[in-house]
Amino acid sequence: MLITEMSHQASLDLLARKRLGRLACAQGSQPYVVPFYFAYYDCSLYSFSTVGKKIEWMRANPLVCVEVDDVVDSHEWTSVVVSGCYEELPDTPRWQSERDFAVSLLQQYAMWWEPALAKTLLHGTERPLVPIFYRIHVVGISGRRATL
Amino acid sequence: MLITEMSHQASLDLLARKRLGRLACAQGSQPYVVPFYFAYYDCSLYSFSTVGKKIEWMRANPLVCVEVDDVVDSHEWTSVVVSGCYEELPDTPRWQSERDFAVSLLQQYAMWWEPALAKTLLHGTERPLVPIFYRIHVVGISGRRATL
Repeated sequence: MLITEMSHQASLDLLARKRLGRLACAQGSQPYVVPFYFAYYDCSLYSFSTVGKKIEWMRANPLVCVEVDDVVDSHEWTSVVVSGCYEELPDTPRWQSERDFAVSLLQQYAMWWEPALAKTLLHGTERPLVPIFYRIHVVGISGRRATL
Repeated sequence: MLITEMSHQASLDLLARKRLGRLACAQGSQPYVVPFYFAYYDCSLYSFSTVGKKIEWMRANPLVCVEVDDVVDSHEWTSVVVSGCYEELPDTPRWQSERDFAVSLLQQYAMWWEPALAKTLLHGTERPLVPIFYRIHVVGISGRRATL
């Protein structure tokens, strides 16, 4: 088995092809990582969520990391790691065009609406269903490929 | 679709059943997340790696986060998030019994040896193949399940 670096373009191609990734943020020196769905366009990963721990942490510290992979098995996989910067797209006139773009991009994958806005029962109470749209600017990217 | 909290035991059961997770660490306020293989035993996740960015970062800041999931599709999944603490198991007399235990546990999954110790060509140079054994103590755990 050999692990090699992927080219910049091959790494971006993986982002464009995949929808499920893992998003890491940090508060102080404590990291936090969760799965998320996204759509890549022009050096940004677009997504949305209801308010919760990850949104609150990214609002306070916009430095994030995203990992996206394609795992066949432990011997054959590709993995791309993005260091990025969180930017919220609020429902205000200043952000309307970016927000409209994000909505139109994400609407191409209609099934996503349901998970992120699913009825969420946590600690016995329902979470508000207001969607927060955001994008992660790709600041750095690297990819590795394992082959037999 | 409904998202609910998993019980503590159900969350631990997922850790015990799965081998592939995503491990997040942080340097300053910059998080970093990569896929990794692990074996769960008695409130710890055991793994090993060659020296690289994640080992260096975890040595400097042992606070980590691990995400493990079982995704059928965007409507049916379980995801467990562990906040944890990194502990290295060096090849010294003080750590020999813990290290021997880690090796015996991980040897049950012999195929893992190959990926973590694969010939890695990065920036045109080979990386040293000395294995670093470590465990992540589970400090906190939470799990969510999405069902239709």
